[in-house]
Amino acid sequence: MSAPTPSLAAPPRPIIGVFDSGFGGLTVLRALLPRVPSAHYIYLGDTARLPYGAKSQATIARYAVESARFLADRGCNYLVIACNTATALALDDIRSAVTIPVLGVIEPGALAAKRTIPEPGGDVLVLATAATVQSHAYRTACAALGLRATEVACPLLVPLVEEGWTDHPVTRDVLSIYLTEALTRCAPQAVLLGCTHYPLIADAIEQTLRSLGSTAILIDSADATAAAATAALGHIPSRDTPTTEPPPTFECFATDSVEKFKRMGSFFLRRPIDHVHHLDLGG
Amino acid sequence: MSAPTPSLAAPPRPIIGVFDSGFGGLTVLRALLPRVPSAHYIYLGDTARLPYGAKSQATIARYAVESARFLADRGCNYLVIACNTATALALDDIRSAVTIPVLGVIEPGALAAKRTIPEPGGDVLVLATAATVQSHAYRTACAALGLRATEVACPLLVPLVEEGWTDHPVTRDVLSIYLTEALTRCAPQAVLLGCTHYPLIADAIEQTLRSLGSTAILIDSADATAAAATAALGHIPSRDTPTTEPPPTFECFATDSVEKFKRMGSFFLRRPIDHVHHLDLGG
Repeated sequence: MSAPTPSLAAPPRPIIGVFDSGFGGLTVLRALLPRVPSAHYIYLGDTARLPYGAKSQATIARYAVESARFLADRGCNYLVIACNTATALALDDIRSAVTIPVLGVIEPGALAAKRTIPEPGGDVLVLATAATVQSHAYRTACAALGLRATEVACPLLVPLVEEGWTDHPVTRDVLSIYLTEALTRCAPQAVLLGCTHYPLIADAIEQTLRSLGSTAILIDSADATAAAATAALGHIPSRDTPTTEPPPTFECFATDSVEKFKRMGSFFLRRPIDHVHHLDLGG
Repeated sequence: MSAPTPSLAAPPRPIIGVFDSGFGGLTVLRALLPRVPSAHYIYLGDTARLPYGAKSQATIARYAVESARFLADRGCNYLVIACNTATALALDDIRSAVTIPVLGVIEPGALAAKRTIPEPGGDVLVLATAATVQSHAYRTACAALGLRATEVACPLLVPLVEEGWTDHPVTRDVLSIYLTEALTRCAPQAVLLGCTHYPLIADAIEQTLRSLGSTAILIDSADATAAAATAALGHIPSRDTPTTEPPPTFECFATDSVEKFKRMGSFFLRRPIDHVHHLDLGG
């Protein structure tokens, strides 16, 4: 009879909150699931009040803080703001409102651009919503790394993705209009997708750039953010015991229709979402 | 010395509340101002939570009732729901929540179609948001008047109008896609603009219909609603004393940025909006 293995208390499993105004943040969750499989994920889409992209700083901060508090109260010990607009306009407010670590999408995106363009003074084109552009959060984050950012608002891309026109002549026409204008203003080495909806039309964006003669490398901030969160969570003990790790699990909350969230969310997450909790915020 | 004119207490001036999720309802206010010049108007745009068009019935009803209560509490004695989505999904909830008369945009639109197509069993094509279409409110209202309605969701038209692309090749391409598909389903004598954003692209819609061989007459529900409100308000005493009527006055409330409301609102109202009050709802 062998001696029993010494029993150690299992380290706490990380609970990662992922927040977005709607469905786009599910592209960040999709990138996170295989990277931090030991975690439990709680995703919150503030779908009753989306989109944030055309609203004011005060309104966005109020909505984002309410959402972040819900996730912290729910037991999350790490929070990913998987929404460019909320990161750009409310990251400081969110960090003041909760005591857990909070990661936004903008700094990881800018750092990924920096790795792509090793020489100093490189040019980055940032495609984003109107509110993100007006905040100049990407310009600030890029400047801190010695990069020049040109920020271009693309308000029609979110509705086109949500219409499901991810591979459609109208989407290519709209991209051509936006990118032609953008390329008169800069000659970028990297193009940063500054909205979590845009990874779904990454192919169309890349093809349009090539057709306009640009060789810029496309950077997906969802991937960059997932990598940054993985690096930060490397310090959480449960990742040291891979053989006892449970598979990643997630649950979803939405402030509007759970049926629509299941349908649209499954499209963004690229796996079925069978159950969604309804949540009232600001009611 | 002539005897003094008998002094009569001035009849109360009508105060008309006009509500929309955003800016589109200003097309109804624009049609109302010259028709009921004796009134004072209070416009509320729930811009912090727009658009309503892709949200659920429960969420839309909650937002619309909060907005209607604000306008009733503010002293309005007549309420126009200048929002197709809120009319389609929340008119009964609003009427239960306030004690003043409430007019929506759908019944006036359907009645205007009926006047355009006097013979029974006519065909109407209704262009609207996804939520309005899913509610089938136009189909029900048209059926009650002996008309057949085909309802088609056009989710990209609101973002295109808000981008300012009211006369743009992409907007014409999108209209061509939506209307070509719609005309395979019906041969309408009238096309009803079932969203208050659409009057701003009425010319493009009419030209697209003609290019597709349709002779259908375009019906603007903003105009139809203003006419219905005028008829209803004919019973308010102040309209009997035209010589003492003050000019129409209006004030605006918005739940998001007042600066954006001034800018976008002036575009929809086609006159400058110099001052907007900020309002928190559901906070």
